[in-house]
Amino acid sequence: MLMADSTKRRELQVDLGERSYPILIGPGLLAEAGNLFREKGFPLKAPILLVADAAVEARYAPTLEASLRQAGYTVTRAVVPSGEQSKSLEMFDELITAALEAGLDRKSTVIALGGGVVGDLAGFVAASYMRGVRFVQVPTTILAHDSSVGGKVAVNHRLAKNIIGAFHQPEFVLYDLDTLKSLPMRDVRSGYSEVIKHGLIWDADFVNYCDERAERLLALDPDSLGHALYEGCKVKAIVVSRDERENDLRAILNLGHTIGHALEAVAGYGELLHGEAIAIGMVGSARLAEKFGYGADIAAETERLFRKFGLPVRIPGGYSTDAIMAAMMHDKKFSEGKMVFVVPKAIGEVEIRGDVPTEWVRSIVEGLKEENGV
Amino acid sequence: MLMADSTKRRELQVDLGERSYPILIGPGLLAEAGNLFREKGFPLKAPILLVADAAVEARYAPTLEASLRQAGYTVTRAVVPSGEQSKSLEMFDELITAALEAGLDRKSTVIALGGGVVGDLAGFVAASYMRGVRFVQVPTTILAHDSSVGGKVAVNHRLAKNIIGAFHQPEFVLYDLDTLKSLPMRDVRSGYSEVIKHGLIWDADFVNYCDERAERLLALDPDSLGHALYEGCKVKAIVVSRDERENDLRAILNLGHTIGHALEAVAGYGELLHGEAIAIGMVGSARLAEKFGYGADIAAETERLFRKFGLPVRIPGGYSTDAIMAAMMHDKKFSEGKMVFVVPKAIGEVEIRGDVPTEWVRSIVEGLKEENGV
Repeated sequence: MLMADSTKRRELQVDLGERSYPILIGPGLLAEAGNLFREKGFPLKAPILLVADAAVEARYAPTLEASLRQAGYTVTRAVVPSGEQSKSLEMFDELITAALEAGLDRKSTVIALGGGVVGDLAGFVAASYMRGVRFVQVPTTILAHDSSVGGKVAVNHRLAKNIIGAFHQPEFVLYDLDTLKSLPMRDVRSGYSEVIKHGLIWDADFVNYCDERAERLLALDPDSLGHALYEGCKVKAIVVSRDERENDLRAILNLGHTIGHALEAVAGYGELLHGEAIAIGMVGSARLAEKFGYGADIAAETERLFRKFGLPVRIPGGYSTDAIMAAMMHDKKFSEGKMVFVVPKAIGEVEIRGDVPTEWVRSIVEGLKEENGV
Repeated sequence: MLMADSTKRRELQVDLGERSYPILIGPGLLAEAGNLFREKGFPLKAPILLVADAAVEARYAPTLEASLRQAGYTVTRAVVPSGEQSKSLEMFDELITAALEAGLDRKSTVIALGGGVVGDLAGFVAASYMRGVRFVQVPTTILAHDSSVGGKVAVNHRLAKNIIGAFHQPEFVLYDLDTLKSLPMRDVRSGYSEVIKHGLIWDADFVNYCDERAERLLALDPDSLGHALYEGCKVKAIVVSRDERENDLRAILNLGHTIGHALEAVAGYGELLHGEAIAIGMVGSARLAEKFGYGADIAAETERLFRKFGLPVRIPGGYSTDAIMAAMMHDKKFSEGKMVFVVPKAIGEVEIRGDVPTEWVRSIVEGLKEENGV
């Protein structure tokens, strides 16, 4: 891990042997893309496909493209509609067609400009086109700090999310803080949910930082935001570099996700934002900690922190406990009355427990429901 | 490289670091699949998807499945129509659906039973399903000895062949010589074209072996066939292990393929079998050798050998030289009047030349056309 000594720009190295790559975080980076491509030796003759989310395309694609063209590159733009439904095999096929029509060759690059959806989709195009071409991520959401580390790319199948995919690491990630200014406030809050998660699983000091700087973080103060993205990415990078293919350690990144995914599934995707769902899930995991005999303050602290960031800490009214439990069972993280959960032992430290009684989970889900007046 | 000391069964290790795998060659292997899966520690609880080519499914799938079931595995069979048109994103989607419906998990295995088409298609399913599951190849053609080494898997796009794919190495390859007995004679001859190619690029002794044993090889004498598949796979394995991602050396495997692919494209795929097209292409490359000042005997020997195996050595009548040249240009292996070719320096030795004048190629193509009465 390397940190450039500058309040303006941070650089984090994700250590994955020959697949290592840097994450650049700072203001004004879009306009420097061309120089960066040159510095890193991307060949000028190889055409570039820029895959942009429709929500941010008009605002940011022109600057990015102008920078690349100025440096001598040929860029073709493809726009995909915002939202999870774009992560389909049909859209994948359309982008492969676009890549072919734009004349992309084996030395070409696919750029993802947008949030996690575009990153996953364009990343799978980069992983598969001619059996793999260069990939560059330009995240425009806070949440995408999570998906920009780890190389997981995928599209959905009508029967299952993220079922068709690959591990394909980017050449680098360009996190231009200016592009976050247009984020709706609800997405800002939701993004910080994953940021805080990285603190909760690994780094109590960083949790304190988020706590103390909450106001500045929510106001997108560049230095605080840059630091939070850097630290969030760093935790994920450490975990991923120790377990690239998700064999064991990487599972700790799923803190809050078992309940969170179930809530998303029951809600219909989109009703609850991902960060909102996992915030509730993390409160649930913290309550599990208490059942395992760890401090009751973990749940109280977790809840207080998420409230401070304006995130939900209760399951919205009208959700059926049975439906939530069924969705978790479908998630396959259980066997014979026991479920697998990432459980905090303290703020900043977790363990994976395979012995969580289903009844504990049910009672916690019940307890988290708003109608219970908690 | 390891060779078991048995005329009955041969084992070749493809050296790719942690992705290394064995190729087992011998009679009666289908019936031993279950034991092999157990020996190699494939988990019993993880369902298996068997993807079978319709041409061989009825004949060989039952034996393979019975062996796996006997060993305690759960197997679901998916049948795909024979032929290149099955290498589509639509068929890929159908197989992902089949995998989901069969309950495949991250520890599951996809088996390809058939030739190169099923290997490429099922291999890409294995590469992408849940970001990659185990893959086992059970080739039932001689030609597939080529695609069973190297891990290249892919489907086609309507605008380009093999454009959507991955590098995904199998856990092992099970080459049951008994399954080759049902091969049509034309496919036998075509398969030997790639076998001989591996001799021509790397091993003059093996070319002599093929020459001397031609009759027994064509009669599918098990020991001769087993040896030829072993040696053919070995050459490819050496080349691939030195250049897994096709950066340089691996290009020598394309001997005869520049002209060969162009002939296939002009013919419409299927009119000329792949092995037939590249046999003609290899004669063309050998004639290029003469132009570069290497022995004229290379072309004569190459031609004699392919004739001995009943393979075509001339471009069938009615093919337009312009169309063939255009197809090669499309192949991108050219720049400014020069083309890239794999050129033999002697039998068993090749070099990659980037300085092949387009006119030389055109004159050789002209000279190879049947109507010229050569």
